[in-house]
Parts: sequence; structure tokens; C-alpha cells
Amino acid sequence: MMGHVSLVGAGPGDPGLLTRTAIARLRAADFVLYDALVDDRALRYARRAQRFYVGKRAGRHSMTQATIQALMIRSARRGRRVVRLKGGDPFVFGRGGEEALALQHAGIPYDVVPGISSALAAPALAGIPVTHRGVAPAFLVVSGHEEAAFASAIAQLQPNGVTVVVLMGLGRLAAIACVLIERGWSRRTPAAVIVDASRPDQQVWRGTLDRLATDALAVDTGGAGTIVIGGVAAIGLQQVGSENVEVGMRTCIPNSRFQIPN
Amino acid sequence: MMGHVSLVGAGPGDPGLLTRTAIARLRAADFVLYDALVDDRALRYARRAQRFYVGKRAGRHSMTQATIQALMIRSARRGRRVVRLKGGDPFVFGRGGEEALALQHAGIPYDVVPGISSALAAPALAGIPVTHRGVAPAFLVVSGHEEAAFASAIAQLQPNGVTVVVLMGLGRLAAIACVLIERGWSRRTPAAVIVDASRPDQQVWRGTLDRLATDALAVDTGGAGTIVIGGVAAIGLQQVGSENVEVGMRTCIPNSRFQIPN
Repeated sequence: MMGHVSLVGAGPGDPGLLTRTAIARLRAADFVLYDALVDDRALRYARRAQRFYVGKRAGRHSMTQATIQALMIRSARRGRRVVRLKGGDPFVFGRGGEEALALQHAGIPYDVVPGISSALAAPALAGIPVTHRGVAPAFLVVSGHEEAAFASAIAQLQPNGVTVVVLMGLGRLAAIACVLIERGWSRRTPAAVIVDASRPDQQVWRGTLDRLATDALAVDTGGAGTIVIGGVAAIGLQQVGSENVEVGMRTCIPNSRFQIPN
Repeated sequence: MMGHVSLVGAGPGDPGLLTRTAIARLRAADFVLYDALVDDRALRYARRAQRFYVGKRAGRHSMTQATIQALMIRSARRGRRVVRLKGGDPFVFGRGGEEALALQHAGIPYDVVPGISSALAAPALAGIPVTHRGVAPAFLVVSGHEEAAFASAIAQLQPNGVTVVVLMGLGRLAAIACVLIERGWSRRTPAAVIVDASRPDQQVWRGTLDRLATDALAVDTGGAGTIVIGGVAAIGLQQVGSENVEVGMRTCIPNSRFQIPN
């Protein structure tokens, strides 16, 4: 008997932001493969399931994408109900598209359960609307994880026209800011960094692109972080208390893309 | 005694995509103000609440933004627990930012409960990842509702570099396609239209920008629709059966921005 795979989004961390369907899939699961950014409280719903960590953390060994996919396929062929649990939404920079293609090619029945993406939720929980009348008519979502992809996406944009939301860029704040400044973005463009959005230890830093380029924010770069760049980052909705993190005085080094300045 | 307002995202329609926190806010609510795109099944959780429709539909009278805001503020001042329920996510083109500012200025305690936005969920449920290695490194989310804002956002982009996701553009398919073609996007750019994503009657149309410009898709323009433009729209994940809707043979009229060609 053939099993089934669900690619499930776990949201930004707060288990209250799990969807009903995500919880139902976890409760029914025999086997859960989960990533680094998945909160432990989400895993508690998967009481019957064997749980398997396949995530990456700086400095730790991790499973290859091919191995993860082979594991899902083999488990489903053995009749198991598999949940592939990813932080945020499974199709937003989560390689969910690749995993879905692999399942499809292998003839495994699967479904996708969208999750709350930090790209939208982190700014909202920090009091920042990603679009706002007269400030930004649109927003671009991009990963800061890979140099080529980030630079190529930013090269598609005129400076200071739309909001830019960067996921997975916490470890490269200065380099990200430098790419934008080199592309003509004003150094005074408002910027915000939200770390561990929706969790009890959520932190919000607000400043400018220039200050972001100093890359000395005292944030845990192993955590989940969202960077918002554009006029909306200066909108002051104070739903959540925001803690300003001090920054140092390093300056942006031109052409230092994705190298942390010394 | 002061009440409280929650700006809550109801997601794309399927009540399984409501979050736990959204359901908790609805259950505790005394008063719910809801929009046109909110599914009736979400409202059923608000058993104790007075429910008030404040949405807009083509041809129907609707409440002004100022009236909606005044109603929320007055109800909270009377000690009521108010839920402002919006389709998708409250901060993505939902004027949630304006409503939060109004609450803040009036000194009303409020919180924001992010919801699953159709900008991400509709493509995912149609089998389209909005980013994909080698196809698109980023995606832009824009509203098709207002001519100036849409054209201004598209003017910020180089053609064919990132995925464009258009919300609230179902009634202006041809004009939206024409703006992109005039801005230099290839007529053969893959495009998809997802109507009523996550609902039992979800429909998916796939074609090209050129065909989209004919504006003769047999879709209900009163429904919730998401348009995806870019190479990813041709990725064939067949999780959900997609129904191809026939298109007519009208052609794109240059400079016809936001006028439906005859």
C-alpha cells in the first residue's frame, strides 16, 4: 500500500500560527522530517510519529537534498504517512518546488500545506506593513543566502521604488546593504531587521541602509531573520514593543559583496 | 473598561488554512467586521459575536474606510473584543497598515494575527513555486487594483527577471498583460491565473502573457484571483488537477492600460 507525503509549512515559530491542516497532518503522521527553523512546539503534535532532523546549522553536518528526497520517497513506498515540515512556507525558498518535482517523478501522492511565511509575518509582527499608500506599491521577496541569486534579483530593480524583504540574510547584513548601496539605493533608506519573529524573544532593530552596512548588529545569526528595506521600515506601528539593538561603527566597503568587512 | 481589536488574516478561503490564533480570536470575539473575500466557514467560529459585513463587491454599496475604522474604535471603547477579519493576510494590500495606524492614534490596544496570503498560497496550491533555482531568484507582489500603483511598481523592474504575483487583478487581466508587454516583457512569458485558491471550486489557467492579454478568460472576476507571471508559471507540479479555461482571440491594444479592449 502506497503512503503519502505532505509538504507542510510550520510558520515562523509561534505554534499559534500553525494552520488547522498542518496540525491535522502532524497528528496523522508516521514519519516527520523537519528543518532547523522548525519550533519544537510544532513537533509535539506529531505524537505518533518518528521524527527526523534533516536541517542545516552553521558548522553542523547536514543531510544532502538528494538524501532527504530519497528518504521521503522510500518511506511513502513503505506505506508511511510522511510530513516534510519546513519553517515558514514550503514553497518560499524552502526547496519545496524541488521536493515536489522529485515526488512527482517518483509517482508518490503528495500535497502542499501552505504556511505563514516570515517574509510577510515578520514585518507585520514588527509593525511594518510591506506595502503602504504613498510609500511602496509592491514588495520584492528575495533570499540573502546565495550571492549570485541575491545580486541578480537586486539588479532587476530600480533603486528605492519598492520594498525589499530579504530572508536568510542575517549572516550577511553588511554585504546585502552594500549591494543595494552600490546599485544606487540611498544610504538613508529605512531598514529593519526582525529576529525570531512571533517567538517570545522576538527582536526588532530599526535603522537605515547605511547603519545596516556596518554589520555589527548584536543578533543571533543562527536564528530566523527577516530584513525589510524601504520607506515602510520607518512606519511606526507599536503593536509589539521593539527593542533597538546597538550597532557598531564599521562602514560599508565598496565591492565587498558577501564578505564581512573587517 | 477598554476592549481590544485584532486584525486577523482569514487566509485564502479553506478554513483548514486558518491559524490556531485566528480561530481563538474568532471564538472570543464579541464583534466581527469582515470583508467580501472571507469564507463563511471562517465566520462560524465566531458563534458569540455580532457579525458585520463591511466588504466591497462590484456594483454593491460599501462602507468607507473611515467608517470601518470609527466602528472598530467605538466598539473597543465600549469594551468589546473586536475582530477585523480580512481575506489572506491583513497587511498585504488589505489596508491593515492604515487600520493599525488609526487604532494606534486612538489609543486602542490591538494586535495583528498574520494569515496565509494568496500571493504565496495560490501559486503553491496550483503547483507553482514562486521561486525556483535557475528560473527566478525572487518574486514581486503587487496589486492590480489601481492603475497608477501597478504601473509604478512594474516600472521599477527589468523585464523577465523575477516572478510577478498580482493580487486583485482579475478584472483587468488584459490591461495588466499589456503594461508588462509594453515594458518589454516577452509575449511568450508563461502566465497562470488561479481563481478561488484552496476552495473546492479552485480553477487554474495556464498560458502566456500574450494569451492573458486577450482578456477573455472565463473566470468569475468577483472571486479571489492571483496572477503569476514568469518562467515558474510553466513548472508542472500536478498536485492539484488544473482545469484549463478557454481563452478568446482578442489582442493586446498598446497603451490600453486598464481599459478592457473591445
